[in-house]
Amino acid sequence: MSAPIPLGMVGGGEGAFIGAVHRIAARMDGQFRLVAGALSSDAERAAASAQALGLERSYGDFRQMAQAEAERPDGIRAVSIVTPNHLHAPVAVAFLDAGIHVICDKPLAATQEQARQIADAAARSSARFFLTHNYCALPMIREARAIVAEGGIGDLRLVQAEYLQGWLAEDVRSKQADWRTDPAQAGAGAIGDIGTHAWQLAAFVTGQTPTAISADLSSMVAGRRVDDDVRAALRYTSGARGGIWASQVAMGCENGLSLRLFGTDGALEWRLEDAERLLFTPKGQPPRILTRAQDRSASFRTPPGHPEGYLEGFANLYTDIAAVIRGDEAPLSRLPGLAEGLSGMAFIAAAQDSSVRGGAWTPVRP
Amino acid sequence: MSAPIPLGMVGGGEGAFIGAVHRIAARMDGQFRLVAGALSSDAERAAASAQALGLERSYGDFRQMAQAEAERPDGIRAVSIVTPNHLHAPVAVAFLDAGIHVICDKPLAATQEQARQIADAAARSSARFFLTHNYCALPMIREARAIVAEGGIGDLRLVQAEYLQGWLAEDVRSKQADWRTDPAQAGAGAIGDIGTHAWQLAAFVTGQTPTAISADLSSMVAGRRVDDDVRAALRYTSGARGGIWASQVAMGCENGLSLRLFGTDGALEWRLEDAERLLFTPKGQPPRILTRAQDRSASFRTPPGHPEGYLEGFANLYTDIAAVIRGDEAPLSRLPGLAEGLSGMAFIAAAQDSSVRGGAWTPVRP
Amino acid sequence: MSAPIPLGMVGGGEGAFIGAVHRIAARMDGQFRLVAGALSSDAERAAASAQALGLERSYGDFRQMAQAEAERPDGIRAVSIVTPNHLHAPVAVAFLDAGIHVICDKPLAATQEQARQIADAAARSSARFFLTHNYCALPMIREARAIVAEGGIGDLRLVQAEYLQGWLAEDVRSKQADWRTDPAQAGAGAIGDIGTHAWQLAAFVTGQTPTAISADLSSMVAGRRVDDDVRAALRYTSGARGGIWASQVAMGCENGLSLRLFGTDGALEWRLEDAERLLFTPKGQPPRILTRAQDRSASFRTPPGHPEGYLEGFANLYTDIAAVIRGDEAPLSRLPGLAEGLSGMAFIAAAQDSSVRGGAWTPVRP
Amino acid sequence: MSAPIPLGMVGGGEGAFIGAVHRIAARMDGQFRLVAGALSSDAERAAASAQALGLERSYGDFRQMAQAEAERPDGIRAVSIVTPNHLHAPVAVAFLDAGIHVICDKPLAATQEQARQIADAAARSSARFFLTHNYCALPMIREARAIVAEGGIGDLRLVQAEYLQGWLAEDVRSKQADWRTDPAQAGAGAIGDIGTHAWQLAAFVTGQTPTAISADLSSMVAGRRVDDDVRAALRYTSGARGGIWASQVAMGCENGLSLRLFGTDGALEWRLEDAERLLFTPKGQPPRILTRAQDRSASFRTPPGHPEGYLEGFANLYTDIAAVIRGDEAPLSRLPGLAEGLSGMAFIAAAQDSSVRGGAWTPVRP
Repeated sequence: MSAPIPLGMVGGGEGAFIGAVHRIAARMDGQFRLVAGALSSDAERAAASAQALGLERSYGDFRQMAQAEAERPDGIRAVSIVTPNHLHAPVAVAFLDAGIHVICDKPLAATQEQARQIADAAARSSARFFLTHNYCALPMIREARAIVAEGGIGDLRLVQAEYLQGWLAEDVRSKQADWRTDPAQAGAGAIGDIGTHAWQLAAFVTGQTPTAISADLSSMVAGRRVDDDVRAALRYTSGARGGIWASQVAMGCENGLSLRLFGTDGALEWRLEDAERLLFTPKGQPPRILTRAQDRSASFRTPPGHPEGYLEGFANLYTDIAAVIRGDEAPLSRLPGLAEGLSGMAFIAAAQDSSVRGGAWTPVRP
Repeated sequence: MSAPIPLGMVGGGEGAFIGAVHRIAARMDGQFRLVAGALSSDAERAAASAQALGLERSYGDFRQMAQAEAERPDGIRAVSIVTPNHLHAPVAVAFLDAGIHVICDKPLAATQEQARQIADAAARSSARFFLTHNYCALPMIREARAIVAEGGIGDLRLVQAEYLQGWLAEDVRSKQADWRTDPAQAGAGAIGDIGTHAWQLAAFVTGQTPTAISADLSSMVAGRRVDDDVRAALRYTSGARGGIWASQVAMGCENGLSLRLFGTDGALEWRLEDAERLLFTPKGQPPRILTRAQDRSASFRTPPGHPEGYLEGFANLYTDIAAVIRGDEAPLSRLPGLAEGLSGMAFIAAAQDSSVRGGAWTPVRP
Repeated sequence: MSAPIPLGMVGGGEGAFIGAVHRIAARMDGQFRLVAGALSSDAERAAASAQALGLERSYGDFRQMAQAEAERPDGIRAVSIVTPNHLHAPVAVAFLDAGIHVICDKPLAATQEQARQIADAAARSSARFFLTHNYCALPMIREARAIVAEGGIGDLRLVQAEYLQGWLAEDVRSKQADWRTDPAQAGAGAIGDIGTHAWQLAAFVTGQTPTAISADLSSMVAGRRVDDDVRAALRYTSGARGGIWASQVAMGCENGLSLRLFGTDGALEWRLEDAERLLFTPKGQPPRILTRAQDRSASFRTPPGHPEGYLEGFANLYTDIAAVIRGDEAPLSRLPGLAEGLSGMAFIAAAQDSSVRGGAWTPVRP
Repeated sequence: MSAPIPLGMVGGGEGAFIGAVHRIAARMDGQFRLVAGALSSDAERAAASAQALGLERSYGDFRQMAQAEAERPDGIRAVSIVTPNHLHAPVAVAFLDAGIHVICDKPLAATQEQARQIADAAARSSARFFLTHNYCALPMIREARAIVAEGGIGDLRLVQAEYLQGWLAEDVRSKQADWRTDPAQAGAGAIGDIGTHAWQLAAFVTGQTPTAISADLSSMVAGRRVDDDVRAALRYTSGARGGIWASQVAMGCENGLSLRLFGTDGALEWRLEDAERLLFTPKGQPPRILTRAQDRSASFRTPPGHPEGYLEGFANLYTDIAAVIRGDEAPLSRLPGLAEGLSGMAFIAAAQDSSVRGGAWTPVRP
């Protein structure tokens, strides 16, 4: 194993959820060492969080951090962005412009304008941009993609991707809930927070992106200013049809991400809450329960039957990113990045547009 | 137990699927005795089938049968109609006009015009009209309805009803497939054959019927003249939203009927292929796996854990119908009939209309 | 379909569980018509029950019934015995001696002596003796047996059969519980009532019977006079090993019958509460979920995905028995009868003996 | 977070399974930093492995390592022992005698004599001894224990612990298989490798240890010199009964650890391959599916529905151990150590003894 790559983080201070996830994922396989951070926009809290985490360098301002780290010979080579969505763009631009690789949480941005800013910065930068759609790094998802790619289900006909949570079924107040339900910080509601995951997962496994959608966005909780339930019908140029259903008011659901595909020669079914199994039904044969014993991506650390899950999937992303940073471009074909981010933003825009226009079929323009 | 009620059947000769199901269902609890039939439009084949089944009286023509049976003192008191959809109306009208109760398979009819004919006949008849939406007679579905009715999930927010089959994923030829994919005999495709089941099941359990839908109907198999995949978004006057997905090209699915409900105070989930369990999640509590041990409808014959299923559910309908025929009106509140049939026809019409108009929200007018 | 075979019943009056099950099973496929009964040892209650069920002939005494029916030209050709265990022998002997086929509920008898009486009567009778180990007539069990027989799992190594119920976890008083926990009527406790089912199921599917067992019988509920929990280790002459665990104090279990087999070339797993699925894992391949779509015994009435269960399995037995009575001997190879009954009695005796002798390995002598 | 505790490792070089697991577990929560190792008994390979892992100090000999590290002011404070079983004792003794905490993989040792050596060393040492029975650190297992402790299932009646694997169903040759099937290195076969896990898990959750067992050990694969299938009946002084079934020839099973408990007031069921759910059935109520949303041990890093598993459970142990090393004794009550190791050795001895003596009930003497 080579020496760990020095990593920075923006956002993710005390009480953050996704910041802690990124830190464990970066650490799990020993490929990264978190050394610097601007963990909060409040310099004092940033410093306190940095100390609690044992970081070597704490910054009160992410622009200053980008510049300082770029100048140090031992500066960070990559930064994890785990802020609310509206800060993705300024932070990503700062680090991309400083030539530092960016590992950004999803969705890409809070607005289309911000998304374009990131795209522009990525275009002019020598550094790479990665987007942590972590679920596509799970072994059975990678195997599902391989099965589809080799024709295991024939021509795709039907896609159903769902992401059902119940934690916002009431008017919850918490650090996590507050920014996610604030249009200014989040940009969109459930469609951005989890709908883009479903969108990306379906695209990753099928290798196809819908070209038109008919959507219905709702806000079920009184006073909520963003959507909390999204239902979209999908059309593909191949003739396939599909649906996405994302909800944060599905009472009792914890993290119900699932994907079902039906083709002319077979079917696939997968659920995050049973992530280590993939149901594969070849035409005319009984369903087979695939496990990591059948996975060919080798995206795991332990033998089948030793459950790996969310954090391990996230770590798969980080480990692939480390390989890319070290010069191996092979993982790029399975790593989500700017294109996936822009596609997700196009999905959000088309769905919002269709919903306003009474469910009219609306082209998705990435 | 009273003496079995004499029953007739129209359709359901040699090789029929649903005719045999009705016969077992009628016989299971000993409430009916099948004595007469017009099992085929071909008089010779009708007679052969009648003899094979040991019927006492065989008719080559259903109108003649209706008249003759009405005149006999020991004539049938009810008739099961198990023909292709386009014959439901003439047969039902003949028997209703003869004062004989009708137990008709779903959907109500092949066309709106035929549906109206049945409605008119029912209005002028002293006899009753029952529609065999059999799934709503399963014990856990009856229990689900009771839970919703008593406020167990609070105000309904989200409904998802699915009915996925794969048997028409190819251009199959068989007695069953042929009439179901012939517009003249079936009227509609998957939406009529199984979509109406999903529609009725959702309405039965929630106690609400959507008032507008946005739908997308497809024919996935080359040359198919009816829809084989239907996706519909639903809106309720209560503010609830929902979806129906019915498909007969979902490769590998056998009979995948399912229902999920989310409300302000809880959630329910049920799948036909695990019909004896109902997942009930009250707000803030872990999901509970309800079985017949918790069912209050007593719609079963054996203790919990002794699996009952499709035929038993169908028999529950027949046993309730027998009670009604014998004068007990209590089961009427849970027996599907004309209203459910007309609602299903309205669903078909609205979905077809919306699909043609690019997914436009379309009122459902029963 | 031929005319229904006239059937009689002994036991099974008002409030009986298994009597009603036999009646539905006999009626389901139209192969039998229940015409006569001695439904209770109390003549008056027998008559009341017979009238409620619409029987043509009621007897207050089973010996009188056997004689009278044997003499009638239209007399019953078979009798279902659904009494408590201690009456199986006298009733079976009476009808076998009258030349009337016997369909007897399990276990064979309450004592070894009674079992021998039945065996002797069967040996001297022209009539057949059937034992309703109903679970072996379920389609996926028949398919499991076929897979084992054709070498699908190779040489058998490990067997685990379980039958877990919780309904006797407390000192319940009911018609069902009372005789089952009375040594005089039941002979044995859980081991006879459900342990013999597990024993027979394992033998039916594997084609092998253990030759020695080491058992531990307990009575967990204070005051209980029969065993309510049985754990037995099994040894086969083939070198296979196994276990049976039967309990009626497994709180929360409804009817938890299951079977797991592991061989040199594959594995099978089945659970009654998910009876329509059979998990088959060929060596080196992922598990396959077999359904009735793969069943080759055609032991069902509806397409796969239309759940059939306990009553249908029971009806499969009756329908096979009807075929045998009509002269077709083919079903005999899959119908449980005297041999299975004697094997079950040998299992009970060996287990009781081993348990008393501190778990010593004890030969099973059928 | 305090600075990571310096950690050493003995064993776990190139190609090792459990060494890598310990390393990830130690690193996951940032509580340990692996700095020194004697990763192989071959000094050259040890050095190569140490360099590949980026260790600061590599030793060719574990005794030398213990001494050197004890003398360094920045020496390791704990050592992970991930060698084959027969080396546990010499290594553990060396480090305990050097005052360095020991984190030892299970089972405790290959022989009773070695187990005693460890016990003696632990008794005279100021350092602590931990045994990585990792499964007891999973959140739902900790919750199960809490439920039992607070009387949630009443008085324990029945226990069933199973650990089924299939990877040794054939005469496999690999680094992992070779030492595990060598009596000299492993001491025992399946009973030691996985049977002790089942034994410890049952004891951890129930709070009770069986006092007598009746066992049957087999070697199913020709030429195998250790047991590969174990079946044991259990008796507790409380009157409870139980069973353990551990097998490494259960074709198709990956890592099938499970636990079922039945008491006078409820039941619990858990399976490793669905580790994030715990089925809890209170008396007279439907089963409840508990998840981490109900877990009170807070032994996780992400919200419920984000699957955590094997590595996270292992990391829970390491994080608790770090807390103890830092002076917090609270986690000791849930951390397995010497007592659990000795209990496991007593289980192995009693089972082997009972099996040889024809299943005779044999006292377990820890």
